[in-house]
Amino acid sequence: MIVAIGTIGLDTTYTPTTKVTEVLGGSAAYFSLASSFFHPTGIVGVIGTDFPEKYWKLLDSKVDLRGVQVYNGKSFRYVSRFGFDINTRTTIKTELNVLERFQPILTDEYLSAEYLYLGNIDPDHQLMVLEQAVNPKLIVSDTINFWIDAKREQFMNVIAKSHVLLINNEEMRLLSGVNNLVKCSQIALDWGVNCIVIKKGEHGALLSSNTCMFPSPAYPVAEVVDPTGAGDAFAGGFLGHIARTQAVTEQTLKEAVVYGHVMGSFIVEDFSVNRLLSLSNAEIEERFQEYLAITSLTG
Amino acid sequence: MIVAIGTIGLDTTYTPTTKVTEVLGGSAAYFSLASSFFHPTGIVGVIGTDFPEKYWKLLDSKVDLRGVQVYNGKSFRYVSRFGFDINTRTTIKTELNVLERFQPILTDEYLSAEYLYLGNIDPDHQLMVLEQAVNPKLIVSDTINFWIDAKREQFMNVIAKSHVLLINNEEMRLLSGVNNLVKCSQIALDWGVNCIVIKKGEHGALLSSNTCMFPSPAYPVAEVVDPTGAGDAFAGGFLGHIARTQAVTEQTLKEAVVYGHVMGSFIVEDFSVNRLLSLSNAEIEERFQEYLAITSLTG
Repeated sequence: MIVAIGTIGLDTTYTPTTKVTEVLGGSAAYFSLASSFFHPTGIVGVIGTDFPEKYWKLLDSKVDLRGVQVYNGKSFRYVSRFGFDINTRTTIKTELNVLERFQPILTDEYLSAEYLYLGNIDPDHQLMVLEQAVNPKLIVSDTINFWIDAKREQFMNVIAKSHVLLINNEEMRLLSGVNNLVKCSQIALDWGVNCIVIKKGEHGALLSSNTCMFPSPAYPVAEVVDPTGAGDAFAGGFLGHIARTQAVTEQTLKEAVVYGHVMGSFIVEDFSVNRLLSLSNAEIEERFQEYLAITSLTG
Repeated sequence: MIVAIGTIGLDTTYTPTTKVTEVLGGSAAYFSLASSFFHPTGIVGVIGTDFPEKYWKLLDSKVDLRGVQVYNGKSFRYVSRFGFDINTRTTIKTELNVLERFQPILTDEYLSAEYLYLGNIDPDHQLMVLEQAVNPKLIVSDTINFWIDAKREQFMNVIAKSHVLLINNEEMRLLSGVNNLVKCSQIALDWGVNCIVIKKGEHGALLSSNTCMFPSPAYPVAEVVDPTGAGDAFAGGFLGHIARTQAVTEQTLKEAVVYGHVMGSFIVEDFSVNRLLSLSNAEIEERFQEYLAITSLTG
């Protein structure tokens, strides 16, 4: 089983053409809906009593929610705006709400989960999950600039306990103080992770371990409606593929990156998690094959 | 033969750590030194009487300079600065100098060149070369924001006569008014080119034709000393490979993009054209093979 800790919340998003208000969002929501195509996934998280029932039902139909607590108060909310360059996001407001009091609990069913995704949330919450987990096989962690600014030291502790750091290029530059992504990757390996995947949005990703480097382009999407959640959906495809193959080899890591691109490319085609609701495993495999074909020199 | 029209000048470049003053630069200089590894290349250009003899000798040792005129006055000069993000360039000054009076002439030897590279220079000069050329097999054109701002219509005329538009992502967005690079590519194909290659610096390139799309990452470089000329060196590898294979197929176009990445990755390892002076064809082929290996899912 994959267990994901992260936010579940309500996103308000402005794009150059549209505004959507309080739609389902949050790192754990995006991640788990993506990873659930590959492998059973449970969420450790918290929502407020105001969380819309339709979103609960939606998540519940795909994901194990036994680790989600309901607190009195308002759910996490995130307001952001994308510019003419739709890959450039400006955060307008981050409302932690019930997250401020959150005490994550790994329920009995989750304690021995083999695969842990520590998605973007307070690093203290990530650490609490790590303290409870029993011998996870693979720990993948991510964060966002908000937490690097607020709790850098705690996130460095998360990294020290993680196998894979999966992080956006801007966040990695902020974390390392270094611009060059090859150097950034080496720095992360020096911190002790076995593997780093630097996500570059529309520009692809760079995977590095001590034995390999795998630069890869993103799947080219002509109609990017809303990039929110693309990084979390990437993570869902990435860890989902590893979990379903039950193997952490160079080969599966590279394939996992490509499944990350595939899931990221789907999520941006519509607002919120909408594209995933109509998605089939056949479409995922088809786009995976198409990715291999178009990126191949002989394809 | 490849004939390249473009600038030959003196670059002053500030990087976060270093400043170099009046070193050899210009689109034709970078392009032709790169392409000369693959195929004989001549330059159509102009320099002033102040052009340093050492740079003339350097170019003359690798490239056919029979198309270069010497005018009374100062050579073209370009001053720019790279920031902490070394991929972000700010132009400080563009001094056209002798370029303002330039009347490009295709000498007899160049008239029937099979391959024309219309590098970054005044689009009116590009058009003058096109008027003189006799049945070129392949015309590849490029430009820079300076000319899109000053002479957009003329550059659109250049595109209308070109087979391949090879252009930086920021310039293509400026030219098309569209942000999404897949849409940008379709727009260029609608303008009538057979192929567009959008160069994205450290993030790679996107090649599109009416029958294929080939997204590719850049070769990862850990020590980027000076990105000046990377786009022109990319063009040199790209057109150089096509010219040496004498074939314009999907396969050679894709290979040409990879040779573009290879030449771009070398040029940024040192200031000016310095890295090309010690470069061997064996190193080029070695990096080409290494690129194929690291970008392959099974490599």
